[in-house]
Amino acid sequence: MHALKVTRVEDFPEWYQAVVREADLAELSPTRGSMIIKPWGMGMWERIRDELDRQIRETGHENYYFPLLIPLSFFAKEAEHVEGFAKEMAVVTHHRLKAIDGELKPDPDAELAEPLIIRPTSETIIGDAFSRWIKSYRDLPLKLNQWANVMRWEMRTRLFLRTAEFLWQEGHTAHADEADAREETMLALEIYRNIAEDFLAIPVVVGEKPENERFPGAVSTYSLEAMMQDGKALQAATSHYLGTNFAEAQNIRFQDKEGGQSLAHTTSWGMTTRMIGAAVMVHGDDDGMRTPPAVAPRQIVIVPMLRGKPEDAELKDYCAALAKELGGLAVFGSALRAYVDTKDAKPADKRWDWVRRGAPLICEIGPRDAANGQVTFIKRTALREGEKIKSHTLARADFVAQAAALLEATQRELYNDAKARLESNIRSDLVTFADLERYYGTGENEGEFKGWARVHWSRPTGAALEEVGTRLKALKLTIRNAPRAQPQSFGKCIFTGAAAVEEILIARAY
Amino acid sequence: MHALKVTRVEDFPEWYQAVVREADLAELSPTRGSMIIKPWGMGMWERIRDELDRQIRETGHENYYFPLLIPLSFFAKEAEHVEGFAKEMAVVTHHRLKAIDGELKPDPDAELAEPLIIRPTSETIIGDAFSRWIKSYRDLPLKLNQWANVMRWEMRTRLFLRTAEFLWQEGHTAHADEADAREETMLALEIYRNIAEDFLAIPVVVGEKPENERFPGAVSTYSLEAMMQDGKALQAATSHYLGTNFAEAQNIRFQDKEGGQSLAHTTSWGMTTRMIGAAVMVHGDDDGMRTPPAVAPRQIVIVPMLRGKPEDAELKDYCAALAKELGGLAVFGSALRAYVDTKDAKPADKRWDWVRRGAPLICEIGPRDAANGQVTFIKRTALREGEKIKSHTLARADFVAQAAALLEATQRELYNDAKARLESNIRSDLVTFADLERYYGTGENEGEFKGWARVHWSRPTGAALEEVGTRLKALKLTIRNAPRAQPQSFGKCIFTGAAAVEEILIARAY
Repeated sequence: MHALKVTRVEDFPEWYQAVVREADLAELSPTRGSMIIKPWGMGMWERIRDELDRQIRETGHENYYFPLLIPLSFFAKEAEHVEGFAKEMAVVTHHRLKAIDGELKPDPDAELAEPLIIRPTSETIIGDAFSRWIKSYRDLPLKLNQWANVMRWEMRTRLFLRTAEFLWQEGHTAHADEADAREETMLALEIYRNIAEDFLAIPVVVGEKPENERFPGAVSTYSLEAMMQDGKALQAATSHYLGTNFAEAQNIRFQDKEGGQSLAHTTSWGMTTRMIGAAVMVHGDDDGMRTPPAVAPRQIVIVPMLRGKPEDAELKDYCAALAKELGGLAVFGSALRAYVDTKDAKPADKRWDWVRRGAPLICEIGPRDAANGQVTFIKRTALREGEKIKSHTLARADFVAQAAALLEATQRELYNDAKARLESNIRSDLVTFADLERYYGTGENEGEFKGWARVHWSRPTGAALEEVGTRLKALKLTIRNAPRAQPQSFGKCIFTGAAAVEEILIARAY
Repeated sequence: MHALKVTRVEDFPEWYQAVVREADLAELSPTRGSMIIKPWGMGMWERIRDELDRQIRETGHENYYFPLLIPLSFFAKEAEHVEGFAKEMAVVTHHRLKAIDGELKPDPDAELAEPLIIRPTSETIIGDAFSRWIKSYRDLPLKLNQWANVMRWEMRTRLFLRTAEFLWQEGHTAHADEADAREETMLALEIYRNIAEDFLAIPVVVGEKPENERFPGAVSTYSLEAMMQDGKALQAATSHYLGTNFAEAQNIRFQDKEGGQSLAHTTSWGMTTRMIGAAVMVHGDDDGMRTPPAVAPRQIVIVPMLRGKPEDAELKDYCAALAKELGGLAVFGSALRAYVDTKDAKPADKRWDWVRRGAPLICEIGPRDAANGQVTFIKRTALREGEKIKSHTLARADFVAQAAALLEATQRELYNDAKARLESNIRSDLVTFADLERYYGTGENEGEFKGWARVHWSRPTGAALEEVGTRLKALKLTIRNAPRAQPQSFGKCIFTGAAAVEEILIARAY
């Protein structure tokens, strides 16, 4: 018996939807392709935002806010960029409605001379500002960040993972030379790794994307890849070295130290609300979400076992005092987030609500606990013993003394579990394409957990790379990245049999 | 001699633009009607957001995020609401671009079946969610908040004050009865008053808007009105009791305690980036912005007087240590925000940059200060003595010991100055319309500082109120609100001569 009606093994995609719904993370909205982010999901995003923002500022970036709407002509400037994005953008063509034959319609007299695009990403409009702001080498590096909503039209929606509108942070920087810009690209990647691993407890493989998976207009694209519980990969964040491509298209030039005119080297990098979906698919179980304590909107939830009797008042006081004491503690560098759930509902229903949301520690305090000065609690990561819910009881002072350590242990446990899963499910023994075909073959064990493959390749480009893509696609596979840590020597290319120059990760992916 | 090229007296609107530009608050963007918010402006908004968010949460509201785009049909449901907003909304009609005859255009094959509107405000889409989420009286009150960008088409743009896109917070709540909803409306108003007065040092008059100035669809609209240095009023935030109007239009019904079906009473309330413009027009002077310390992104800026010599290293260390020590202090309930400006620019230029931004305390530290263990600093609110810049010197330990108190004193001073201006510039001696015409008459002293008038009226409605509006409009005046604090008895209506029932504020306004 589990808190969800569907288990991971039975139907992973259905299970994912169930967790998102039952954990109060998000739901579909009446606007096709967009979601409503609900308090538990929003709270997770706000924690991610606060911590990521802190690290972005600490490394010398400042926050700006650029317009939501970008003139269409801006997209025509960087050819590859248009190609990559033009196919999925929301276009504003009118600025007024009018009742026509009793029906509200776009007013034909209010058509825009130039359509405006809802930003799918902001390189074009920020690059335009760069071209005005950057005059001299003294203006460089220019390192800025923006928290914003963006929109890329999507027909097949999956909450958090693929929606038309999503929330993100986008960093944009300009530098005097390639070395400085490349260093920035890697700095952003390192910040993302911190957030994923230390904050969301999601271990990742950091590496460079192959040519055909680069951001439109980029010279190099790097990604974080995380392994979901169904063995698929999820790209958790990306960082791009854009070379001088955007600088050329947008005329971002500066007077260098020698008095000449040089093109700036730019970067961009982003992390999105997708991370919440990743956290669900990495940490969730058949009872719902298990929220990493560092990112949990409420780390310790206290449910008073109210019975609609006079003793309730005393019990509520006991719980409030406990929450207050816990709130005075520090954990993960912030004040501990404790909460008393006094909602008008049955205590058992409330317990299960918090189990499904994955509050790390759930205290169920009855009159006897209050009388004895103790705390009875459940650990979300060790919910059951056999079929039964396992609860612990500690003297109140002991519980308070151990609270931070319990949360830290939960955080480590979630990370270690995911890390073990990642490490034990990357095959490195597939050396020919036939091996790959045999392992990932679309036979009857199609839905089985397969994990990833780490293979050697000769890094083909152009048409040869396209052919590789086609061969992989037949197996529903893609190249994820070339991990940062590479060996000294290589075997043969799994695609061509030629001498390999690199190891890459191959996987099915979200 | 002042840091800005234009003074308030010479040309107030020009002066405002100059402060916004020179203080690195914002600039116009290539997207018509939209602005780029720059670091000093963004930092102020983030401080407002953090404090407002804290108060909103503390009073039992939770954060959600709803879609940017709202189906057109949603606006047709509440008739007054459409009427109020339909005239100025951005309409998305296509979801793809296509190269047609070599030019990028909205793809005719990608026209949306139903146009989507960029939210001008979210009552319609949140009301729709309310109608799904609210089933029983146990679900009430439902109190939520959203931080978002919104868009209302504007032809004449003024940075922060009137732009097509702006950032805001919108609270939306549903209640079982009118009393509870009205209490909520006033609670939001009180939070806004806190933020304006205690945080932005902007004194306000809180009151109810007359019928013709209500939010489209509201039963009662309340506002905060602030007085700018040119005597005009600026509406700083609004809170609306929507009655059951939206509930009826959107079918927000619940099973009440008696088992019957009742309509919910809803509220909405918002505060926007406009507050930054208000702060400029209340606190700025002819040297630029004077940022209230509670909201200043950097409260104490340290400029080392670097000379490109070996001693620089020691000086930088001294400044860094000072900043670190200051950062360990608490002020206005947060860690003090100290910053060392080591940018590659002349110290004098840097000083003036911070004067124009209005950093509350600016320390200029030379080698002698470092050697003597002292701090030389400028108070932004007491910048000059006659024509000369006035600087102070304190032993480092004394400066650190006094730093928080200096910031608190600056905050109080800014508030007290603005409060004195507000209180001494509301005339209550205009008792006939002829008085009003004489005082505000559009003669040759048109541009002169006029302040507000507090007058008695009989609260006409409908056509009579419309006529009042027309008469006031001829004098470029509007009714701001009926202040919360009202006298026991009233004189005669300034418009009709009949017995009055209320006092109202009349002013020119932004």
